[in-house]
Amino acid sequence: MLPFSQKPHSKFSFFKLLFWVSQLLVLSSGFELDESLTYIWPLPSEFTSGNETLAVDPTLSLSVSGKGGDLKILREGFERYKKIIFKHVSGVSIFEKLRGITSVYDISELRIIVNSDSEELQLGVDESYTLFVAKNDGKSIVGGATIENVLHWHIIDEQSFPLEVPTYPNLWNGAYTKWERYTVEDASDIVSFAKMRGIHVMAEVDVPGHAESWGAGYPDLWPSSSCREPLDVSKNFTFDLISGILSDIRKIFPFELFHLGGDEVNTGCWTSTPHVKQWLNDRNMTAKDAYQYFVLKAQEMAISKGWTPVNWEETFNAFAANLNPQTVVHNWLGPGVCPNAVAKGFRCIFSNQGVWYLDHLDVPWDQVYNAEPLEGINNVSEQNLVLGGEVCMWDEVADTSNVQQTIWPRAAAAAERLWSKREAVSARNITLTALPRFLYFRCLLNRRGVQAAPVTNKYARQPPTGPGSCYEQ
Amino acid sequence: MLPFSQKPHSKFSFFKLLFWVSQLLVLSSGFELDESLTYIWPLPSEFTSGNETLAVDPTLSLSVSGKGGDLKILREGFERYKKIIFKHVSGVSIFEKLRGITSVYDISELRIIVNSDSEELQLGVDESYTLFVAKNDGKSIVGGATIENVLHWHIIDEQSFPLEVPTYPNLWNGAYTKWERYTVEDASDIVSFAKMRGIHVMAEVDVPGHAESWGAGYPDLWPSSSCREPLDVSKNFTFDLISGILSDIRKIFPFELFHLGGDEVNTGCWTSTPHVKQWLNDRNMTAKDAYQYFVLKAQEMAISKGWTPVNWEETFNAFAANLNPQTVVHNWLGPGVCPNAVAKGFRCIFSNQGVWYLDHLDVPWDQVYNAEPLEGINNVSEQNLVLGGEVCMWDEVADTSNVQQTIWPRAAAAAERLWSKREAVSARNITLTALPRFLYFRCLLNRRGVQAAPVTNKYARQPPTGPGSCYEQ
Repeated sequence: MLPFSQKPHSKFSFFKLLFWVSQLLVLSSGFELDESLTYIWPLPSEFTSGNETLAVDPTLSLSVSGKGGDLKILREGFERYKKIIFKHVSGVSIFEKLRGITSVYDISELRIIVNSDSEELQLGVDESYTLFVAKNDGKSIVGGATIENVLHWHIIDEQSFPLEVPTYPNLWNGAYTKWERYTVEDASDIVSFAKMRGIHVMAEVDVPGHAESWGAGYPDLWPSSSCREPLDVSKNFTFDLISGILSDIRKIFPFELFHLGGDEVNTGCWTSTPHVKQWLNDRNMTAKDAYQYFVLKAQEMAISKGWTPVNWEETFNAFAANLNPQTVVHNWLGPGVCPNAVAKGFRCIFSNQGVWYLDHLDVPWDQVYNAEPLEGINNVSEQNLVLGGEVCMWDEVADTSNVQQTIWPRAAAAAERLWSKREAVSARNITLTALPRFLYFRCLLNRRGVQAAPVTNKYARQPPTGPGSCYEQ
Repeated sequence: MLPFSQKPHSKFSFFKLLFWVSQLLVLSSGFELDESLTYIWPLPSEFTSGNETLAVDPTLSLSVSGKGGDLKILREGFERYKKIIFKHVSGVSIFEKLRGITSVYDISELRIIVNSDSEELQLGVDESYTLFVAKNDGKSIVGGATIENVLHWHIIDEQSFPLEVPTYPNLWNGAYTKWERYTVEDASDIVSFAKMRGIHVMAEVDVPGHAESWGAGYPDLWPSSSCREPLDVSKNFTFDLISGILSDIRKIFPFELFHLGGDEVNTGCWTSTPHVKQWLNDRNMTAKDAYQYFVLKAQEMAISKGWTPVNWEETFNAFAANLNPQTVVHNWLGPGVCPNAVAKGFRCIFSNQGVWYLDHLDVPWDQVYNAEPLEGINNVSEQNLVLGGEVCMWDEVADTSNVQQTIWPRAAAAAERLWSKREAVSARNITLTALPRFLYFRCLLNRRGVQAAPVTNKYARQPPTGPGSCYEQ
């Protein structure tokens, strides 16, 4: 009887049924892995994979051989990652024992052959590796890749001079507070912490702009007390002090690249301050000439200390012809700069702010992913002058409470662009080839304790829009 | 000569000088400690302090005596905190050695006397302690306080049933994905992790509302496929299943309080679904009667398993006269509920959503701080029925990427309210007595790796509004 009584509403019921089935599917299955993809991020330059799942023993042991078999970096890295990856294992093992379960694992030892015993990190060091993941029966996954990781540390800016400089001990009077400072030891700790993780640290001391905080300790560095940056170009003291800083911190930062800034220099204080204006007039120099004079003088100091100077693109835009040919030009203002720089023989780092400034919260993950540092550079020798790209995290409106969410997961989108083969990241529809892996990788970051924000939010670091699975955000 | 030439502008110069001096003061000094305050958060119930700074040896050792001297909880807690507090020490020590500095510390041993050898955490356990911090010469700081920490874990809701229930293994089909589930072992790990930190875990299984996800594994729990909650009150299966859940998880959660939810029950599905409506009619019950029937039946089950039931205030508001007198009433809708509940002899937990729901992002720290769980309760015996207060972190629009910033630092504002003497937190101008300590405590949380958001933001978990010191945000 019921079917008949419902007949007038059958269409309605049909839709209700559909609604129910789709809801049930969502509830019971949720996110499904696309089996045609390999869930690795970033993709290695080459890889093959089998169709078996191999179980790794949480008590995995390490066997290292070769010339570099005794490297502390490798052993500590292995132990560190083992703890992160198998964080939740102990409890499970106890219950497995209680339940009388004996687990059988496919992989219980990681064997590594290290061909070099040098731990030094410099540009051009061969960091490539090949990875075999195999069961005892010899089936294997083979991968190969090259890694170059650099932390660019913009240490000082106009608001704060947080670093201890022994030769000029008043400089860190310009820190926000005495608790918000880096001692020489702190800075060295950061460099060795990074080294243990295969990361170079490129320090930046930005001159002559963005330097107001310097004058808290040494007010003579200001053109005047009411006009405080750029640093006073007319005084020898300014350059003596820069030289002192570079000598002190050269001991801390062994990486060959050193960033001298040079961005956003408003020379108004030079032309409006009587004694600086007089100095310019005496030398028949324009303010732009003085900017060039300052940058080149700082470059010479850095070079004399064995560093290769990096400068923001304004220096290249203003006086490319006079720029030291060793200079690495650091792009940020927009597209098209690296093509110009490498055409003139300079090396270049790509950081177009429209796509790779992480503090630009309105740039979605796919725009980060699709930015190509080699765009517009077709000649292979010129392509080789592009050292790479850098995503920049400026912290005007970020602090320790939200910096992780601002960096992640979008930094990982740039990482695959830089790491993986251009064909692999450019050829196909990234909604199918990259997005599922990227969603999965974001949740992996979360599981590893990194507070990566949802992938598909309109603005970076926004919370999810409602309850739901990590794998669909 | 110069003073005279400047005379016409002297007023202007004076103001420029003032501006310069004030800027310089900001740059060079920044945040200053108010020496009349003791920078402890939350304030102990009693304390005195000297005027000397004592240096603690980072290699601090522990000496425990008394009946409970062998407790693992204590030793592990000591080691854990030592690592957190002296995180950055190793590097400094190395450089101190290089520089030939021998540090002299005032305190090199922590002595603890533990009077009880019971590790069990239950309501009413004496958790008070007295702390002496003294130099060898006997000068001391004395403090005393009582702690009661409870984690209320709202495990299941309408969107997801993430917990493994061995007796009803399909229940966690209602999880978002198979990777977003808690095994029995995971849940036990959480309880023992909490126990090692002196924290009870009060589990919640919310019935009969907020339970749609249950039906992903057992669709019979839904009144119908198109009308899915509250749980079907008419079926024995519903109660058999609840009983099964409680039996299974009783083994996981030893704490005597158990939360049965009972909030926001919209009985529309009961009165609109033919077989449930029929069941109500057969028993001459209204939907409200059935709500009471369901809640009381679940309470009986919890009590029979040795638990004390906690229910959201809707149960009290709807049928206080019939509610089991053991019930702990959990306030959330607004003010004034605990006074009513304790007047009727019920115990109560204060969580007025207007001030203590942390997901309400527009509640500033001072409103959290000023909320008083005992407001309107003047009788001491009734005050004793208020078990305490709870700040609630609901995660509709939060996830692992921003939950820390949503909880902290505002949860700490409530903590001082609950922990410290009422006179200490109520009597004076909190901008002077609490805010400086709170700013300091937030930065301490940051230093310890907790991503506490700025204190004085308009909305919780917002980033700072510009560059600046942690101590002034």
